[in-house]
Amino acid sequence: MANLTLLNEDEKTWERIFKTSTALYRLREMELDRVGLSLSQAGVLYFAKTSPEPLTPMKISRLIHKQPHTTSALLIRMESRGLIKRTRDLRRKNLVRVSLTEKGEAALRRQLGERGAMNITACLSREEVASFNVVLRRLHDAAVEMMQQMKPSPYEDLPF
Amino acid sequence: MANLTLLNEDEKTWERIFKTSTALYRLREMELDRVGLSLSQAGVLYFAKTSPEPLTPMKISRLIHKQPHTTSALLIRMESRGLIKRTRDLRRKNLVRVSLTEKGEAALRRQLGERGAMNITACLSREEVASFNVVLRRLHDAAVEMMQQMKPSPYEDLPF
Repeated sequence: MANLTLLNEDEKTWERIFKTSTALYRLREMELDRVGLSLSQAGVLYFAKTSPEPLTPMKISRLIHKQPHTTSALLIRMESRGLIKRTRDLRRKNLVRVSLTEKGEAALRRQLGERGAMNITACLSREEVASFNVVLRRLHDAAVEMMQQMKPSPYEDLPF
Repeated sequence: MANLTLLNEDEKTWERIFKTSTALYRLREMELDRVGLSLSQAGVLYFAKTSPEPLTPMKISRLIHKQPHTTSALLIRMESRGLIKRTRDLRRKNLVRVSLTEKGEAALRRQLGERGAMNITACLSREEVASFNVVLRRLHDAAVEMMQQMKPSPYEDLPF
């Protein structure tokens, strides 16, 4: 076991990715807390506004990285707070579309007023940001490729 | 609103950080699914094994980035599966310590046998990994500093 917990350089980097993204998520959570939103709720509002196609609960589930039943409970709570509405597709009755209400638009405006975390890379030089973006894209693509090898279907529709 | 959803270069980078870490988490989840563990359960097993000091539920909560009540429910389920045990501190009765059982040690060994995601940076050159690590550390430290400015106490004990 002593052996197994020894990490090589890539595995130590993985740990740092994990710790850093945990800190970034937490920072964003604290910031969103000021405007009364959770990270998941903020994600739903943002994706509902910016998605090029109508949003389904399943699609949201993937985008915010939550299980379908967790997403479903989240959407019910957000609807009862008046932030979103869920409507059935007229042609495909089993398809639910999620859209923003006026109150949801206002919440999104408050959310987008809080941009400290989103600008955290301002502490880096522009060259560092550029190479960081290259690395992020390569890691993203490598992850998607590995996922497709493991399970060919449900992760193809996630553009970078 | 059209204006508000426009993102500058740092904010676009933030989106890419978010998408990339989502893909990495999901990949790791799929991998852990093979050995019957969730990301949070794997985190508990790993931290219970490697933490230099006895682990409390509150500390775990911070490490795996979950609310205390979610962590508490997770620990109860893991204890009922026989993976961990929770014991009360002899001197401070209100303090609960989490440790691995023999079955938990075995689960951790299976978990550490799955290392594909953890080695994802193998697709980068060693120079890229080195500068990526520098960037991660700076973002982590910047996030911790911003959190301390927002709320001075509970985030001081998170070493990189």
